[in-house]
Amino acid sequence: MRILIALGGNALLRRDEPMTVPAQIANIRRAALQIARLADDNQLIIAHGNGPQVGLLALQAAAAGAASAAPLDVLDAESEGMIGYLLEQELANALPAERQVVTLLTRVEVHAADPAFQHPTKPIGPVYAEGDAKRLAVLNGWAVAQDGDGFRRVVASPKPQRIVPVQPIEWLLDHDVIVVAAGGGGIPVTLASDGKTRTGVEAVIDKDLCSALLAADVHADLLLIATDVDAVYADWRTPRERVLGEISVAALRSMSFPAGSMGPKVEAACEFVARTGRPAVIGSLDHIEEMALGKAGTRVTPG
Amino acid sequence: MRILIALGGNALLRRDEPMTVPAQIANIRRAALQIARLADDNQLIIAHGNGPQVGLLALQAAAAGAASAAPLDVLDAESEGMIGYLLEQELANALPAERQVVTLLTRVEVHAADPAFQHPTKPIGPVYAEGDAKRLAVLNGWAVAQDGDGFRRVVASPKPQRIVPVQPIEWLLDHDVIVVAAGGGGIPVTLASDGKTRTGVEAVIDKDLCSALLAADVHADLLLIATDVDAVYADWRTPRERVLGEISVAALRSMSFPAGSMGPKVEAACEFVARTGRPAVIGSLDHIEEMALGKAGTRVTPG
Repeated sequence: MRILIALGGNALLRRDEPMTVPAQIANIRRAALQIARLADDNQLIIAHGNGPQVGLLALQAAAAGAASAAPLDVLDAESEGMIGYLLEQELANALPAERQVVTLLTRVEVHAADPAFQHPTKPIGPVYAEGDAKRLAVLNGWAVAQDGDGFRRVVASPKPQRIVPVQPIEWLLDHDVIVVAAGGGGIPVTLASDGKTRTGVEAVIDKDLCSALLAADVHADLLLIATDVDAVYADWRTPRERVLGEISVAALRSMSFPAGSMGPKVEAACEFVARTGRPAVIGSLDHIEEMALGKAGTRVTPG
Repeated sequence: MRILIALGGNALLRRDEPMTVPAQIANIRRAALQIARLADDNQLIIAHGNGPQVGLLALQAAAAGAASAAPLDVLDAESEGMIGYLLEQELANALPAERQVVTLLTRVEVHAADPAFQHPTKPIGPVYAEGDAKRLAVLNGWAVAQDGDGFRRVVASPKPQRIVPVQPIEWLLDHDVIVVAAGGGGIPVTLASDGKTRTGVEAVIDKDLCSALLAADVHADLLLIATDVDAVYADWRTPRERVLGEISVAALRSMSFPAGSMGPKVEAACEFVARTGRPAVIGSLDHIEEMALGKAGTRVTPG
């Protein structure tokens, strides 16, 4: 099978952890050992989030002075380099020496007129207390919003329209190379009216939606969304809470889920399944092998 | 022909320019237009330096607090993301829409016992006045050294021993994809005694030596080192100064060149030619097409 594995941010850095490189390496190593269990029998493409990391890079750039601060598309690219390297290295270390792993930078087209640019919603960087968040918002010109029990900077998150390099990824997969791609949802660019010239834009694309698009483009047999819960729950945190096993796109789309966490994963899974007629599965990084075999997680089917 | 083009740091950012993203994009666009002139008839692989950029990333990380500061291998990876993205985008914009350009992160093995780790020589980051450089050295635990008319931070620059992903690069070149790789001399890693496990190390590899190694590995027909002078000069800045046209490895190796600038380029060209029996050329980015045709620059031959 050809499987696209979308790694949640928590696979790289848990919410309660300091954003240090050693902490990220420890988490990535754990994820790599799980992913390695699928490598023998499958072609793998790995996508990942970048919310905490791209936020930290933005903070670092701001701390050193506005003159040298890079826009978000450039910071997205830096985060693809940083996380891609750590992921590639730990994956290669966890696999037989002859199995090759490469990381490709990935540009992703978005529409310049996407309404997301007027309504920033994507949280990036550290979690702050309300007062600190509001002070930083004024200081740096940020938008901030509540996220869980704290506050974070929020940025525009336009819908991914087109992965720019698709064929090269497929050629590498055909050679059984494991490809890390579309990190952080990709580097957002817009296409000019000449149909050719692309320009970076300030945004962070949702990594699950981007993964669904990429999975469809490379003809993946399965989109596997790895997160920190073992499945999708209906009526989450209510007396009627129940785990969803196998469920059709139509049934899943009739339910509602929290916008910041499970919502985008469910939407991405539904998009992939509706577009391709192939399944998607959402579940815990720790059950990745069972999820691929249809024995764990919430499996979304065409119905 | 298959040509590896090694872009000097000045192709990305001139020494007298502020390190801003718009300044880098303007320079990279100029380089991309030159490179595009070679794209019709050749397979191209593009390598580039990262000295100013990786130094800036280190400064930004330090400014935001030591806890989150990343080691140099991670900063090298970030710089591959940042510069690779800008280069890929401008190259793709300068080429017909059907020609694909991708950027691959590139790990490069070095020896843990390389004496360079005891003697840092590679300048990175901005140029400082002597007093400022010495103050920053104490503050951040840097080594600093004179570079031209100023002072800069210097870091270890071990010799590149092995490019980690070579076959995937060749597969992409075979499909006429233009590949940006080995940016900043690659991400330095060491290989454990198990022959498999790799770990990042704090260093910045010389981009010309790394380019020579990569050019040999991918069976390039020509190593083209693009810099800001039109050729190599013998007896530079003396009354006997003269331009070198075509010259053998043996003749070139009998001369001496400034360690920080032309020295590594000459050494890299000689290494490639001696190892492969194929030519290398050193000259100005503005003459890139003529250099490939043997009509400009200093052409190094097996003799």
